[in-house]
Amino acid sequence: MSEKLYVPVLLGTNRKDRQSDHVAKWVFAKMQERDDMEPVYFDVRDFDLPRDHYGTEIGHHFPEWRDAVIRADGLVIVTPEYNHGYPGALKSVLDLLLKEYIHKAVALVGVSAGPWGGTRVIESLVPMVRELGLAVTFTDLNFPKVGTKFDEDGNLLDDAYQKRVKGFLDELVWMARALKWGRENL
Amino acid sequence: MSEKLYVPVLLGTNRKDRQSDHVAKWVFAKMQERDDMEPVYFDVRDFDLPRDHYGTEIGHHFPEWRDAVIRADGLVIVTPEYNHGYPGALKSVLDLLLKEYIHKAVALVGVSAGPWGGTRVIESLVPMVRELGLAVTFTDLNFPKVGTKFDEDGNLLDDAYQKRVKGFLDELVWMARALKWGRENL
Amino acid sequence: MSEKLYVPVLLGTNRKDRQSDHVAKWVFAKMQERDDMEPVYFDVRDFDLPRDHYGTEIGHHFPEWRDAVIRADGLVIVTPEYNHGYPGALKSVLDLLLKEYIHKAVALVGVSAGPWGGTRVIESLVPMVRELGLAVTFTDLNFPKVGTKFDEDGNLLDDAYQKRVKGFLDELVWMARALKWGRENL
Amino acid sequence: MSEKLYVPVLLGTNRKDRQSDHVAKWVFAKMQERDDMEPVYFDVRDFDLPRDHYGTEIGHHFPEWRDAVIRADGLVIVTPEYNHGYPGALKSVLDLLLKEYIHKAVALVGVSAGPWGGTRVIESLVPMVRELGLAVTFTDLNFPKVGTKFDEDGNLLDDAYQKRVKGFLDELVWMARALKWGRENL
Repeated sequence: MSEKLYVPVLLGTNRKDRQSDHVAKWVFAKMQERDDMEPVYFDVRDFDLPRDHYGTEIGHHFPEWRDAVIRADGLVIVTPEYNHGYPGALKSVLDLLLKEYIHKAVALVGVSAGPWGGTRVIESLVPMVRELGLAVTFTDLNFPKVGTKFDEDGNLLDDAYQKRVKGFLDELVWMARALKWGRENL
Repeated sequence: MSEKLYVPVLLGTNRKDRQSDHVAKWVFAKMQERDDMEPVYFDVRDFDLPRDHYGTEIGHHFPEWRDAVIRADGLVIVTPEYNHGYPGALKSVLDLLLKEYIHKAVALVGVSAGPWGGTRVIESLVPMVRELGLAVTFTDLNFPKVGTKFDEDGNLLDDAYQKRVKGFLDELVWMARALKWGRENL
Repeated sequence: MSEKLYVPVLLGTNRKDRQSDHVAKWVFAKMQERDDMEPVYFDVRDFDLPRDHYGTEIGHHFPEWRDAVIRADGLVIVTPEYNHGYPGALKSVLDLLLKEYIHKAVALVGVSAGPWGGTRVIESLVPMVRELGLAVTFTDLNFPKVGTKFDEDGNLLDDAYQKRVKGFLDELVWMARALKWGRENL
Repeated sequence: MSEKLYVPVLLGTNRKDRQSDHVAKWVFAKMQERDDMEPVYFDVRDFDLPRDHYGTEIGHHFPEWRDAVIRADGLVIVTPEYNHGYPGALKSVLDLLLKEYIHKAVALVGVSAGPWGGTRVIESLVPMVRELGLAVTFTDLNFPKVGTKFDEDGNLLDDAYQKRVKGFLDELVWMARALKWGRENL
């Protein structure tokens, strides 16, 4: 059990002034504090997706992401909710790969400007990540009214999230370890 | 690995002349042929749900179902698609329990009178079974135009399903074994 | 424009101690105060759905509901969220009819014990009511933490809903009038 | 009734060798044959979305699309299904605008390489277009196994679609006319 799980975090928006940035960095920092996982940070803004020749083979053009997913035991996706759905940039990045995701865990963080905490983008992601072969945990993190949750330096202002993030990551570790055992033994 | 997995099958409709009946019985029979699982058959028609005093404690009134879910390593849900969603009777039965489902596998069989094989009821079930704590497999079985798939005695007329059901059940076994290891070791 | 719209309200849960009861009654009372609609109240608890012979012709056994939907210009559905989905009783009642719903408006009220206001049950209802031929409005009412929203007599404790319910019903009236014109002229 | 409805068609994929291209062009041609609508063709590949400064004001940078949606009475979206969801490029384009969509009709065409006709991408789009304020019709077009449906020149090989497309467009016209009356009279 002492082996660390390798867990990419994906920030799912490339919008200017995106506030999910604070959320993703904070979750990433909490992951770094734990001794059971080794997180690595990805940002959809760093993917230069071609506009006119986007075929299914394209994952090979993003070797850093591809290698991370191949090595991954689990993923964390941090996403704002745009019109009740996922950002286009997030979907384009997730669609880059296919079999690399199979039998790995994923945990979802929803972010919203309004009061509902990204619950709807999470509901819309669940059937999609299932099709990728990912097993999604059932203990989401939700950040409603994200504009009120952090100070200007990105410090989280609401202590209740300290307990929530522990439960969120504990569950991800549980699912990632069970599936890792499966990949190695079944 | 020699231990058999315990897997309740739930037929999710109580409609008269329901054709999903043939599907559920056929899947159940295929499960019985395997030496890695012990299936048990449930039918939502057998649940006498009270109309006027239905609280969250109600699962205790259906001990056979409750005990089966507690013992279960995985579930198979066979459901027709009614107006793109799940039958009310199926939802009422699934809502009877809660923590009993956690960290177990579920595999979904969609049935339709028309050409789309219950794909839409499956999409609508995925976020719901996730909330129950079930981990859903990504290899569904779909029975479109179910009225043409069986003879009057319930014999399946399309041999392609022999291979499909093997893949469907193999994946369920994989997920159920990984989660069982997790429940016993994590 | 002086003609009143006929709008059935459907309370979608039959659970004991259901708190959505307060919500449905309050919305119904607000509808009664308006001079542009004539509401009528339905409760899924009053539908005695048979357990063992439920075919598509069953709507004829509930003539009061059927006649109300035939006469309706729009519907209001008030529903709690059970495991991210709709209550079984609500779905069973909605599935009783089919062509009677076509080209009429529907507005959705989500209720939850927790903080997310039934957003997920609404998302799951949207594709389902579309298949019925209903046109759903995009201005939902959400009642999170419903246990804190009413006093023991069912009086709403949060004045912010006075403005919200006006916008919610105004939008329903808009959509119902547009579709009514369509049904009569196209 | 003699006035033509203005209806943008949006092809929702920018993938190389996209077969939805044939579908969108065929639907567009059928729309041109009718005397009740004036279609205009858009392709998400023609939108040069910036990678690093994508804010909500961005619609102003695509005036041709924005003006078309402002003028539109309805939309047709033609989309393949990628991992049960919508293509990222389609979502990014739809998210460019907001109030411009309100109280207009939209009809959905689903395309898939496999047998299920894009039913799942349609289900995932329905709650999203509702949030935009669009009213979605309930008579989709589905193109399963799209690779077998057209010859090399883009001629449709299956005559059954002639009748289907008529029903699909008739329903769009119905909804677009009802909402147009509403926008002008309510």
